[in-house]
Amino acid sequence: MNLNNGCVSQQNTRYVAVVGLGFCEHHITLEAIQELKRAEVVLGHESVISSLSEYIPGDAMCISDAHIRERTDDIKDLRIYRTKEAVKYALKGKRVVYLCPGDPGIYSYAQPILEYAAEKVEVKVVPGITAALVAAARLGAPLRDGFALIGLYEERLNPEIIEKRVRAAIESDFVIVFYLPKHEALLYPQFYPEEKYPELYPVKVRCVERLENAFCILQKTRSPDTPLGILRISQEQEVILTTLNNYSHVFEDILPYSTVVVGNSMSKIAGKYFVTSVWRD
Amino acid sequence: MNLNNGCVSQQNTRYVAVVGLGFCEHHITLEAIQELKRAEVVLGHESVISSLSEYIPGDAMCISDAHIRERTDDIKDLRIYRTKEAVKYALKGKRVVYLCPGDPGIYSYAQPILEYAAEKVEVKVVPGITAALVAAARLGAPLRDGFALIGLYEERLNPEIIEKRVRAAIESDFVIVFYLPKHEALLYPQFYPEEKYPELYPVKVRCVERLENAFCILQKTRSPDTPLGILRISQEQEVILTTLNNYSHVFEDILPYSTVVVGNSMSKIAGKYFVTSVWRD
Repeated sequence: MNLNNGCVSQQNTRYVAVVGLGFCEHHITLEAIQELKRAEVVLGHESVISSLSEYIPGDAMCISDAHIRERTDDIKDLRIYRTKEAVKYALKGKRVVYLCPGDPGIYSYAQPILEYAAEKVEVKVVPGITAALVAAARLGAPLRDGFALIGLYEERLNPEIIEKRVRAAIESDFVIVFYLPKHEALLYPQFYPEEKYPELYPVKVRCVERLENAFCILQKTRSPDTPLGILRISQEQEVILTTLNNYSHVFEDILPYSTVVVGNSMSKIAGKYFVTSVWRD
Repeated sequence: MNLNNGCVSQQNTRYVAVVGLGFCEHHITLEAIQELKRAEVVLGHESVISSLSEYIPGDAMCISDAHIRERTDDIKDLRIYRTKEAVKYALKGKRVVYLCPGDPGIYSYAQPILEYAAEKVEVKVVPGITAALVAAARLGAPLRDGFALIGLYEERLNPEIIEKRVRAAIESDFVIVFYLPKHEALLYPQFYPEEKYPELYPVKVRCVERLENAFCILQKTRSPDTPLGILRISQEQEVILTTLNNYSHVFEDILPYSTVVVGNSMSKIAGKYFVTSVWRD
Protein backbone atom coordinates (compact mmCIF):
# COMPACT_ATOMS: atom_id res chain seq x y z
CA MET A 1 0.00 0.00 0.00
CA ASN A 2 1.60 3.29 -1.11
CA LEU A 3 0.20 5.84 1.29
CA ASN A 4 0.97 9.11 -0.44
CA ASN A 5 3.70 10.73 -2.47
CA GLY A 6 6.09 13.52 -1.70
CA CYS A 7 6.29 15.49 1.49
CA VAL A 8 3.04 17.20 0.65
CA SER A 9 0.47 18.51 3.07
CA GLN A 10 -3.13 17.49 2.58
CA GLN A 11 -4.54 20.76 1.26
CA ASN A 12 -8.04 19.77 0.35
CA THR A 13 -9.25 17.31 2.93
CA ARG A 14 -10.57 17.93 6.41
CA TYR A 15 -8.51 16.22 9.07
CA VAL A 16 -7.18 16.33 12.59
CA ALA A 17 -3.56 17.50 12.47
CA VAL A 18 -1.72 16.16 15.50
CA VAL A 19 1.08 18.70 15.65
CA GLY A 20 4.44 18.31 17.40
CA LEU A 21 5.94 21.51 18.82
CA GLY A 22 9.28 20.38 20.26
CA PHE A 23 10.30 21.54 23.73
CA CYS A 24 11.09 25.22 23.10
CA GLU A 25 9.19 27.81 21.15
CA HIS A 26 11.99 27.97 18.61
CA HIS A 27 11.74 24.23 17.86
CA ILE A 28 8.48 24.76 16.00
CA THR A 29 8.73 23.77 12.32
CA LEU A 30 7.37 25.62 9.29
CA GLU A 31 4.98 22.69 8.76
CA ALA A 32 3.53 23.13 12.26
CA ILE A 33 3.16 26.89 11.70
CA GLN A 34 1.42 26.22 8.36
CA GLU A 35 -1.08 23.91 10.11
CA LEU A 36 -1.74 26.48 12.85
CA LYS A 37 -2.34 29.27 10.33
CA ARG A 38 -5.06 27.22 8.66
CA ALA A 39 -6.66 25.97 11.89
CA GLU A 40 -10.36 26.42 12.59
CA VAL A 41 -10.26 24.58 15.94
CA VAL A 42 -7.18 24.33 18.20
CA LEU A 43 -6.94 22.02 21.21
CA GLY A 44 -4.18 22.03 23.82
CA HIS A 45 -2.92 23.34 27.12
CA GLU A 46 -3.84 27.01 27.65
CA SER A 47 -0.21 28.12 28.11
CA VAL A 48 0.77 26.45 24.82
CA ILE A 49 -2.17 27.96 22.93
CA SER A 50 -1.32 31.36 24.34
CA SER A 51 2.37 31.10 23.35
CA LEU A 52 1.33 30.31 19.76
CA SER A 53 -1.28 33.05 19.40
CA GLU A 54 0.65 34.87 16.64
CA TYR A 55 0.08 31.85 14.34
CA ILE A 56 -3.56 31.08 15.22
CA PRO A 57 -6.26 32.84 13.15
CA GLY A 58 -8.32 35.27 15.23
CA ASP A 59 -11.58 33.48 14.42
CA ALA A 60 -10.31 29.98 15.32
CA MET A 61 -12.04 28.26 18.23
CA CYS A 62 -9.49 27.45 20.97
CA ILE A 63 -10.42 24.64 23.38
CA SER A 64 -7.95 24.77 26.25
CA ASP A 65 -7.43 22.20 28.95
CA ALA A 66 -8.66 24.79 31.45
CA HIS A 67 -11.97 24.78 29.57
CA ILE A 68 -12.09 20.99 29.73
CA ARG A 69 -11.08 20.89 33.41
CA GLU A 70 -14.29 22.76 34.19
CA ARG A 71 -15.99 19.47 33.26
CA THR A 72 -13.51 16.95 34.73
CA ASP A 73 -10.52 16.87 37.07
CA ASP A 74 -9.39 13.41 36.00
CA ILE A 75 -6.42 13.55 33.65
CA LYS A 76 -7.46 10.41 31.75
CA ASP A 77 -10.98 11.80 31.19
CA LEU A 78 -9.38 15.05 30.02
CA ARG A 79 -7.37 13.26 27.33
CA ILE A 80 -10.39 11.25 26.15
CA TYR A 81 -12.55 14.37 26.08
CA ARG A 82 -9.91 16.27 24.09
CA THR A 83 -9.64 13.45 21.54
CA LYS A 84 -13.44 13.23 21.18
CA GLU A 85 -13.71 16.98 20.73
CA ALA A 86 -11.02 16.90 18.01
CA VAL A 87 -12.85 14.19 16.09
CA LYS A 88 -16.24 15.83 16.62
CA TYR A 89 -15.12 19.08 14.98
CA ALA A 90 -13.25 17.29 12.16
CA LEU A 91 -16.47 15.38 11.39
CA LYS A 92 -18.25 18.74 11.17
CA GLY A 93 -15.76 19.68 8.43
CA LYS A 94 -13.52 21.85 10.59
CA ARG A 95 -9.77 21.93 10.23
CA VAL A 96 -8.60 20.78 13.66
CA VAL A 97 -5.13 21.15 15.20
CA TYR A 98 -4.30 19.10 18.28
CA LEU A 99 -1.15 20.44 19.95
CA CYS A 100 1.51 18.13 21.42
CA PRO A 101 4.79 18.99 23.11
CA GLY A 102 7.77 17.19 21.55
CA ASP A 103 6.82 14.67 18.86
CA PRO A 104 3.18 13.50 18.72
CA GLY A 105 4.17 9.89 17.99
CA ILE A 106 6.42 9.16 20.97
CA TYR A 107 4.76 8.74 24.37
CA SER A 108 2.20 11.29 23.21
CA TYR A 109 -1.19 11.64 21.53
CA ALA A 110 -0.91 10.43 17.93
CA GLN A 111 -1.49 6.79 18.88
CA PRO A 112 -4.60 7.24 21.05
CA ILE A 113 -6.11 9.63 18.49
CA LEU A 114 -5.41 7.22 15.63
CA GLU A 115 -6.82 4.27 17.56
CA TYR A 116 -9.99 6.22 18.30
CA ALA A 117 -10.33 8.17 15.08
CA ALA A 118 -8.69 6.22 12.22
CA GLU A 119 -12.01 4.90 10.92
CA LYS A 120 -13.81 8.21 11.39
CA VAL A 121 -11.60 11.00 10.03
CA GLU A 122 -8.27 11.64 8.34
CA VAL A 123 -5.44 12.16 10.80
CA LYS A 124 -2.22 13.89 9.82
CA VAL A 125 0.74 13.58 12.16
CA VAL A 126 3.19 16.52 12.00
CA PRO A 127 6.50 15.42 13.51
CA GLY A 128 8.24 17.48 16.20
CA ILE A 129 11.65 17.57 17.87
CA THR A 130 11.38 14.84 20.50
CA ALA A 131 13.16 15.14 23.88
CA ALA A 132 15.84 12.58 22.91
CA LEU A 133 17.02 14.92 20.14
CA VAL A 134 16.93 17.97 22.42
CA ALA A 135 18.89 16.21 25.15
CA ALA A 136 21.40 14.87 22.62
CA ALA A 137 21.92 18.27 20.96
CA ARG A 138 22.43 20.01 24.30
CA LEU A 139 24.84 17.29 25.50
CA GLY A 140 26.86 16.90 22.29
CA ALA A 141 26.40 13.87 20.06
CA PRO A 142 25.64 10.84 22.23
CA LEU A 143 23.22 9.16 19.79
CA ARG A 144 25.52 9.00 16.77
CA ASP A 145 25.45 5.25 16.39
CA GLY A 146 21.79 4.47 17.11
CA PHE A 147 20.08 4.10 20.48
CA ALA A 148 17.29 2.43 22.41
CA LEU A 149 14.48 4.66 23.69
CA ILE A 150 12.72 3.32 26.79
CA GLY A 151 9.87 4.93 28.71
CA LEU A 152 10.81 4.07 32.25
CA TYR A 153 7.57 5.04 33.86
CA GLU A 154 4.04 5.34 32.64
CA GLU A 155 0.61 4.56 34.03
CA ARG A 156 0.34 0.80 34.32
CA LEU A 157 3.07 0.08 31.78
CA ASN A 158 4.21 -3.52 32.16
CA PRO A 159 7.34 -3.46 34.37
CA GLU A 160 8.63 -6.84 33.14
CA ILE A 161 8.81 -5.64 29.53
CA ILE A 162 10.68 -2.52 30.69
CA GLU A 163 13.22 -4.54 32.62
CA LYS A 164 13.63 -6.94 29.68
CA ARG A 165 14.29 -4.01 27.34
CA VAL A 166 16.76 -2.39 29.72
CA ARG A 167 18.71 -5.66 30.00
CA ALA A 168 18.63 -6.30 26.25
CA ALA A 169 19.76 -2.76 25.44
CA ILE A 170 22.64 -3.03 27.92
CA GLU A 171 23.78 -6.44 26.68
CA SER A 172 23.91 -5.28 23.08
CA ASP A 173 25.72 -2.03 23.89
CA PHE A 174 23.02 0.44 22.88
CA VAL A 175 23.21 3.99 24.08
CA ILE A 176 19.97 4.24 26.10
CA VAL A 177 17.57 7.16 26.37
CA PHE A 178 15.10 7.00 29.26
CA TYR A 179 11.90 9.07 29.10
CA LEU A 180 9.82 10.18 32.12
CA PRO A 181 11.89 8.45 34.74
CA LYS A 182 9.58 9.63 37.49
CA HIS A 183 5.84 9.80 37.18
CA GLU A 184 4.05 13.15 36.90
CA ALA A 185 1.79 12.04 39.75
CA LEU A 186 4.72 13.07 41.96
CA LEU A 187 4.31 16.65 40.73
CA TYR A 188 0.55 16.76 40.22
CA PRO A 189 -1.07 14.39 42.71
CA GLN A 190 -4.38 16.23 42.28
CA PHE A 191 -4.70 14.74 38.78
CA TYR A 192 -4.03 11.23 40.03
CA PRO A 193 -6.41 10.55 42.95
CA GLU A 194 -5.54 7.31 44.70
CA GLU A 195 -9.06 5.91 44.37
CA LYS A 196 -8.81 6.17 40.56
CA TYR A 197 -5.17 5.11 40.22
CA PRO A 198 -4.49 2.64 43.04
CA GLU A 199 -1.68 1.05 41.00
CA LEU A 200 0.38 4.24 41.30
CA TYR A 201 0.42 4.38 45.09
CA PRO A 202 2.59 4.95 47.01
CA VAL A 203 3.81 7.06 44.06
CA LYS A 204 7.29 7.85 45.16
CA VAL A 205 8.16 4.28 46.08
CA ARG A 206 7.04 2.90 42.71
CA CYS A 207 8.78 5.64 40.70
CA VAL A 208 12.01 5.38 42.61
CA GLU A 209 11.99 1.60 42.45
CA ARG A 210 11.87 1.42 38.67
CA LEU A 211 14.55 4.05 38.22
CA GLU A 212 16.77 2.42 40.81
CA ASN A 213 16.33 -1.00 39.21
CA ALA A 214 17.44 0.26 35.81
CA PHE A 215 20.49 2.00 37.25
CA CYS A 216 21.33 -0.99 39.42
CA ILE A 217 21.65 -3.10 36.25
CA LEU A 218 23.56 -0.32 34.49
CA GLN A 219 26.03 0.15 37.32
CA LYS A 220 26.78 -3.58 37.43
CA THR A 221 27.38 -3.79 33.69
CA ARG A 222 28.71 -0.51 32.32
CA SER A 223 31.96 1.21 33.20
CA PRO A 224 31.71 3.70 36.12
CA ASP A 225 33.02 6.49 33.87
CA THR A 226 30.23 5.97 31.31
CA PRO A 227 28.76 9.40 30.49
CA LEU A 228 25.33 10.12 31.94
CA GLY A 229 23.37 13.15 30.70
CA ILE A 230 20.13 14.58 32.05
CA LEU A 231 17.79 17.08 30.42
CA ARG A 232 15.39 18.47 33.01
CA ILE A 233 12.27 20.04 31.62
CA SER A 234 9.95 20.41 34.56
CA GLN A 235 11.05 23.83 35.74
CA GLU A 236 13.66 25.60 33.68
CA GLN A 237 15.41 23.56 31.06
CA GLU A 238 18.82 22.52 32.19
CA VAL A 239 21.37 19.94 31.10
CA ILE A 240 23.54 18.03 33.54
CA LEU A 241 26.51 15.95 32.36
CA THR A 242 28.16 13.49 34.73
CA THR A 243 29.16 9.81 34.84
CA LEU A 244 27.41 6.63 35.93
CA ASN A 245 29.33 6.39 39.22
CA ASN A 246 27.93 9.81 40.20
CA TYR A 247 24.37 8.70 39.57
CA SER A 248 23.34 8.77 43.23
CA HIS A 249 24.45 12.42 43.50
CA VAL A 250 22.17 13.52 40.65
CA PHE A 251 19.26 11.23 41.47
CA GLU A 252 17.20 14.08 42.91
CA ASP A 253 17.78 16.08 39.70
CA ILE A 254 15.89 13.48 37.68
CA LEU A 255 12.48 15.07 38.03
CA PRO A 256 9.33 14.15 36.14
CA TYR A 257 9.63 14.80 32.39
CA SER A 258 13.39 14.52 32.51
CA THR A 259 15.25 12.72 29.75
CA VAL A 260 18.27 10.66 30.72
CA VAL A 261 20.96 9.53 28.24
CA VAL A 262 23.34 6.74 29.25
CA GLY A 263 26.40 6.13 27.08
CA ASN A 264 27.74 2.82 25.78
CA SER A 265 31.26 1.39 25.52
CA MET A 266 32.10 3.88 22.73
CA SER A 267 30.91 6.97 24.62
CA LYS A 268 33.19 9.50 26.25
CA ILE A 269 33.22 13.02 27.66
CA ALA A 270 35.25 15.19 25.28
CA GLY A 271 35.77 18.62 26.81
CA LYS A 272 32.29 19.63 27.88
CA TYR A 273 30.54 17.35 25.35
CA PHE A 274 29.11 13.83 25.56
CA VAL A 275 30.11 12.06 22.35
CA THR A 276 29.66 8.49 21.15
CA SER A 277 32.13 7.27 18.54
CA VAL A 278 31.28 4.71 15.89
CA TRP A 279 31.73 0.98 16.53
CA ARG A 280 34.00 -0.23 13.75
CA ASP A 281 35.67 -3.49 12.70
CA MET B 1 28.54 19.79 35.44
CA ASN B 2 25.63 22.05 34.55
CA LEU B 3 26.16 22.92 30.91
CA ASN B 4 23.86 25.86 30.42
CA ASN B 5 20.45 27.08 31.46
CA GLY B 6 17.25 27.56 29.54
CA CYS B 7 16.71 26.88 25.89
CA VAL B 8 18.81 29.88 25.02
CA SER B 9 20.95 30.37 21.95
CA GLN B 10 24.53 31.46 22.42
CA GLN B 11 24.27 35.09 21.28
CA ASN B 12 27.68 36.40 22.07
CA THR B 13 30.17 33.67 21.34
CA ARG B 14 31.63 32.53 18.04
CA TYR B 15 30.87 28.92 17.29
CA VAL B 16 30.14 26.32 14.65
CA ALA B 17 26.38 25.68 14.58
CA VAL B 18 25.73 22.17 13.28
CA VAL B 19 22.19 22.64 12.06
CA GLY B 20 19.60 19.93 11.41
CA LEU B 21 17.14 20.63 8.59
CA GLY B 22 14.83 17.58 8.63
CA PHE B 23 13.94 15.85 5.38
CA CYS B 24 11.62 18.40 3.78
CA GLU B 25 11.97 22.14 3.45
CA HIS B 26 8.98 22.61 5.77
CA HIS B 27 10.66 20.62 8.57
CA ILE B 28 13.07 23.48 9.22
CA THR B 29 12.72 24.91 12.74
CA LEU B 30 12.72 28.57 13.80
CA GLU B 31 16.00 27.88 15.63
CA ALA B 32 17.64 26.68 12.40
CA ILE B 33 16.33 29.73 10.52
CA GLN B 34 17.67 32.01 13.27
CA GLU B 35 21.14 30.42 12.94
CA LEU B 36 21.06 30.81 9.15
CA LYS B 37 20.07 34.47 9.36
CA ARG B 38 23.12 35.21 11.51
CA ALA B 39 25.55 33.09 9.47
CA GLU B 40 28.79 34.51 8.12
CA VAL B 41 29.98 31.20 6.61
CA VAL B 42 27.65 28.39 5.44
CA LEU B 43 28.83 24.88 4.52
CA GLY B 44 26.75 22.18 2.85
CA HIS B 45 25.58 20.57 -0.34
CA GLU B 46 24.96 23.13 -3.11
CA SER B 47 21.31 22.11 -3.59
CA VAL B 48 20.63 22.55 0.12
CA ILE B 49 22.36 25.93 0.29
CA SER B 50 20.39 27.05 -2.73
CA SER B 51 17.04 25.94 -1.27
CA LEU B 52 17.75 27.99 1.88
CA SER B 53 18.91 31.16 0.10
CA GLU B 54 16.02 33.26 1.46
CA TYR B 55 17.41 32.82 5.00
CA ILE B 56 21.14 33.28 4.26
CA PRO B 57 22.53 36.85 4.42
CA GLY B 58 23.68 38.10 1.02
CA ASP B 59 27.22 38.73 2.25
CA ALA B 60 27.68 35.28 3.84
CA MET B 61 30.38 33.07 2.32
CA CYS B 62 28.84 29.81 1.04
CA ILE B 63 31.21 26.85 0.72
CA SER B 64 29.36 24.17 -1.24
CA ASP B 65 30.37 20.56 -1.75
CA ALA B 66 30.79 21.34 -5.46
CA HIS B 67 33.47 23.85 -4.47
CA ILE B 68 35.19 21.22 -2.32
CA ARG B 69 34.86 18.52 -5.01
CA GLU B 70 37.09 20.65 -7.20
CA ARG B 71 39.83 19.67 -4.76
CA THR B 72 38.87 16.04 -4.02
CA ASP B 73 36.57 13.33 -5.35
CA ASP B 74 36.86 11.17 -2.26
CA ILE B 75 33.78 11.45 -0.05
CA LYS B 76 35.73 10.90 3.16
CA ASP B 77 38.22 13.64 2.23
CA LEU B 78 35.26 15.88 1.43
CA ARG B 79 33.80 15.44 4.91
CA ILE B 80 37.16 16.03 6.60
CA TYR B 81 37.78 19.12 4.45
CA ARG B 82 34.34 20.51 5.27
CA THR B 83 34.89 20.01 9.02
CA LYS B 84 38.32 21.66 8.88
CA GLU B 85 36.94 24.60 6.92
CA ALA B 86 34.16 25.05 9.50
CA VAL B 87 36.64 25.13 12.37
CA LYS B 88 39.08 27.35 10.46
CA TYR B 89 36.49 30.07 9.96
CA ALA B 90 35.13 29.76 13.51
CA LEU B 91 38.69 30.28 14.80
CA LYS B 92 38.84 33.43 12.68
CA GLY B 93 35.84 34.69 14.64
CA LYS B 94 33.23 33.93 11.98
CA ARG B 95 29.76 32.64 12.75
CA VAL B 96 29.72 29.30 10.92
CA VAL B 97 26.68 27.18 10.01
CA TYR B 98 27.24 23.57 8.94
CA LEU B 99 24.11 22.16 7.31
CA CYS B 100 22.91 18.60 7.93
CA PRO B 101 19.86 16.81 6.58
CA GLY B 102 17.71 15.27 9.33
CA ASP B 103 19.20 15.57 12.81
CA PRO B 104 22.93 16.37 13.09
CA GLY B 105 23.42 13.95 15.97
CA ILE B 106 22.17 10.71 14.42
CA TYR B 107 24.34 9.08 11.75
CA SER B 108 25.40 12.58 10.76
CA TYR B 109 28.04 15.25 11.35
CA ALA B 110 27.75 16.46 14.95
CA GLN B 111 29.92 13.65 16.31
CA PRO B 112 32.88 13.96 13.88
CA ILE B 113 32.84 17.76 14.23
CA LEU B 114 32.79 17.55 18.02
CA GLU B 115 35.58 14.96 18.08
CA TYR B 116 37.71 17.17 15.85
CA ALA B 117 36.72 20.59 17.16
CA ALA B 118 35.62 20.31 20.80
CA GLU B 119 38.96 21.54 22.12
CA LYS B 120 39.29 24.27 19.50
CA VAL B 121 35.93 26.07 19.20
CA GLU B 122 32.43 26.15 20.65
CA VAL B 123 30.04 23.82 18.82
CA LYS B 124 26.28 24.26 19.02
CA VAL B 125 24.10 21.40 17.82
CA VAL B 126 20.66 22.48 16.54
CA PRO B 127 18.37 19.43 16.50
CA GLY B 128 16.36 18.50 13.42
CA ILE B 129 13.52 16.14 12.57
CA THR B 130 15.29 12.79 12.10
CA ALA B 131 14.07 10.23 9.54
CA ALA B 132 12.59 7.95 12.23
CA LEU B 133 10.14 10.72 13.19
CA VAL B 134 9.28 11.47 9.55
CA ALA B 135 8.66 7.80 8.76
CA ALA B 136 6.61 7.37 11.92
CA ALA B 137 4.48 10.46 11.26
CA ARG B 138 3.79 9.43 7.68
CA LEU B 139 2.93 5.84 8.72
CA GLY B 140 0.79 6.69 11.78
CA ALA B 141 2.16 6.16 15.28
CA PRO B 142 4.43 3.10 15.28
CA LEU B 143 6.92 4.43 17.86
CA ARG B 144 4.46 5.18 20.67
CA ASP B 145 6.05 2.88 23.21
CA GLY B 146 9.77 3.45 22.56
CA PHE B 147 11.97 1.88 19.91
CA ALA B 148 15.45 0.74 18.97
CA LEU B 149 17.23 2.66 16.21
CA ILE B 150 19.82 0.60 14.32
CA GLY B 151 22.00 1.73 11.41
CA LEU B 152 22.05 -1.38 9.29
CA TYR B 153 24.78 -0.32 6.97
CA GLU B 154 27.66 2.07 7.23
CA GLU B 155 31.26 2.14 6.14
CA ARG B 156 33.12 -0.51 8.12
CA LEU B 157 30.56 -0.60 10.93
CA ASN B 158 31.09 -3.75 12.96
CA PRO B 159 28.60 -6.35 11.66
CA GLU B 160 28.66 -8.43 14.87
CA ILE B 161 27.47 -5.51 16.99
CA ILE B 162 24.67 -4.86 14.49
CA GLU B 163 23.50 -8.47 14.57
CA LYS B 164 23.71 -8.50 18.36
CA ARG B 165 21.56 -5.36 18.54
CA VAL B 166 19.02 -6.72 16.07
CA ARG B 167 18.67 -9.93 18.11
CA ALA B 168 18.45 -8.08 21.43
CA ALA B 169 15.83 -5.66 20.09
CA ILE B 170 13.74 -8.52 18.75
CA GLU B 171 13.95 -10.58 21.95
CA SER B 172 12.82 -7.67 24.08
CA ASP B 173 9.95 -6.69 21.76
CA PHE B 174 11.21 -3.29 20.67
CA VAL B 175 9.72 -1.67 17.60
CA ILE B 176 12.81 -1.37 15.38
CA VAL B 177 13.80 1.46 13.05
CA PHE B 178 16.51 0.63 10.51
CA TYR B 179 18.51 3.47 8.92
CA LEU B 180 20.36 3.26 5.59
CA PRO B 181 19.63 -0.36 4.91
CA LYS B 182 21.63 -0.24 1.70
CA HIS B 183 24.87 1.66 1.31
CA GLU B 184 25.02 4.85 -0.78
CA ALA B 185 27.95 3.31 -2.67
CA LEU B 186 25.23 1.46 -4.58
CA LEU B 187 23.91 4.79 -5.86
CA TYR B 188 27.16 6.75 -6.10
CA PRO B 189 29.98 4.30 -6.85
CA GLN B 190 32.12 7.20 -8.12
CA PHE B 191 32.50 8.45 -4.52
CA TYR B 192 33.55 5.00 -3.27
CA PRO B 193 36.40 3.78 -5.50
CA GLU B 194 37.24 0.15 -4.77
CA GLU B 195 40.94 0.89 -4.17
CA LYS B 196 40.02 3.27 -1.33
CA TYR B 197 37.13 1.23 0.11
CA PRO B 198 37.98 -2.44 -0.50
CA GLU B 199 35.82 -3.46 2.47
CA LEU B 200 32.68 -2.34 0.59
CA TYR B 201 33.18 -4.57 -2.43
CA PRO B 202 31.30 -6.24 -3.96
CA VAL B 203 28.89 -3.54 -2.74
CA LYS B 204 25.59 -5.10 -3.59
CA VAL B 205 26.42 -8.45 -2.04
CA ARG B 206 27.50 -6.89 1.27
CA CYS B 207 24.51 -4.54 1.45
CA VAL B 208 21.98 -7.19 0.58
CA GLU B 209 23.53 -9.68 2.99
CA ARG B 210 23.15 -7.48 6.02
CA LEU B 211 19.59 -6.53 5.18
CA GLU B 212 18.65 -10.14 4.47
CA ASN B 213 20.24 -11.31 7.72
CA ALA B 214 18.20 -8.86 9.79
CA PHE B 215 14.96 -9.83 8.07
CA CYS B 216 15.78 -13.51 8.30
CA ILE B 217 15.90 -13.17 12.10
CA LEU B 218 12.76 -11.02 12.09
CA GLN B 219 10.77 -13.45 9.96
CA LYS B 220 11.66 -16.34 12.24
CA THR B 221 10.67 -14.50 15.38
CA ARG B 222 7.89 -11.98 14.69
CA SER B 223 4.40 -12.70 13.45
CA PRO B 224 4.03 -12.66 9.63
CA ASP B 225 1.36 -9.96 9.90
CA THR B 226 3.69 -7.60 11.80
CA PRO B 227 3.44 -4.16 10.16
CA LEU B 228 6.43 -3.12 8.07
CA GLY B 229 6.73 0.51 6.92
CA ILE B 230 9.25 2.02 4.52
CA LEU B 231 10.07 5.68 3.93
CA ARG B 232 12.03 6.06 0.71
CA ILE B 233 13.99 9.26 0.38
CA SER B 234 16.35 8.69 -2.50
CA GLN B 235 14.09 9.86 -5.32
CA GLU B 236 10.73 11.24 -4.36
CA GLN B 237 9.61 10.70 -0.81
CA GLU B 238 7.14 7.89 -0.57
CA VAL B 239 5.78 5.74 2.21
CA ILE B 240 4.98 2.05 1.79
CA LEU B 241 3.01 0.11 4.40
CA THR B 242 2.90 -3.69 4.27
CA THR B 243 3.56 -6.67 6.56
CA LEU B 244 6.63 -8.77 7.37
CA ASN B 245 5.50 -11.71 5.20
CA ASN B 246 5.49 -9.38 2.18
CA TYR B 247 9.03 -8.28 2.82
CA SER B 248 10.48 -10.01 -0.25
CA HIS B 249 8.02 -8.16 -2.51
CA VAL B 250 9.18 -4.75 -1.27
CA PHE B 251 12.86 -5.59 -0.97
CA GLU B 252 13.74 -3.65 -4.11
CA ASP B 253 11.90 -0.60 -2.72
CA ILE B 254 14.36 -0.37 0.14
CA LEU B 255 16.81 1.92 -1.60
CA PRO B 256 19.74 3.74 -0.02
CA TYR B 257 18.65 6.32 2.55
CA SER B 258 15.39 4.50 3.18
CA THR B 259 14.08 4.17 6.70
CA VAL B 260 12.36 0.92 7.65
CA VAL B 261 10.05 0.53 10.66
CA VAL B 262 9.23 -2.98 11.92
CA GLY B 263 6.41 -3.36 14.43
CA ASN B 264 6.41 -5.37 17.65
CA SER B 265 3.81 -7.65 19.27
CA MET B 266 1.59 -4.64 20.06
CA SER B 267 1.65 -3.17 16.54
CA LYS B 268 -1.21 -3.38 14.07
CA ILE B 269 -2.48 -1.85 10.87
CA ALA B 270 -5.57 0.23 11.74
CA GLY B 271 -7.22 1.42 8.53
CA LYS B 272 -4.35 2.93 6.58
CA TYR B 273 -2.23 3.62 9.66
CA PHE B 274 0.57 1.68 11.40
CA VAL B 275 -0.09 1.99 15.14
CA THR B 276 1.63 0.47 18.17
CA SER B 277 -0.45 0.19 21.32
CA VAL B 278 0.98 0.39 24.81
CA TRP B 279 2.22 -2.74 26.64
CA ARG B 280 0.28 -2.83 29.89
CA ASP B 281 -0.04 -5.08 32.93
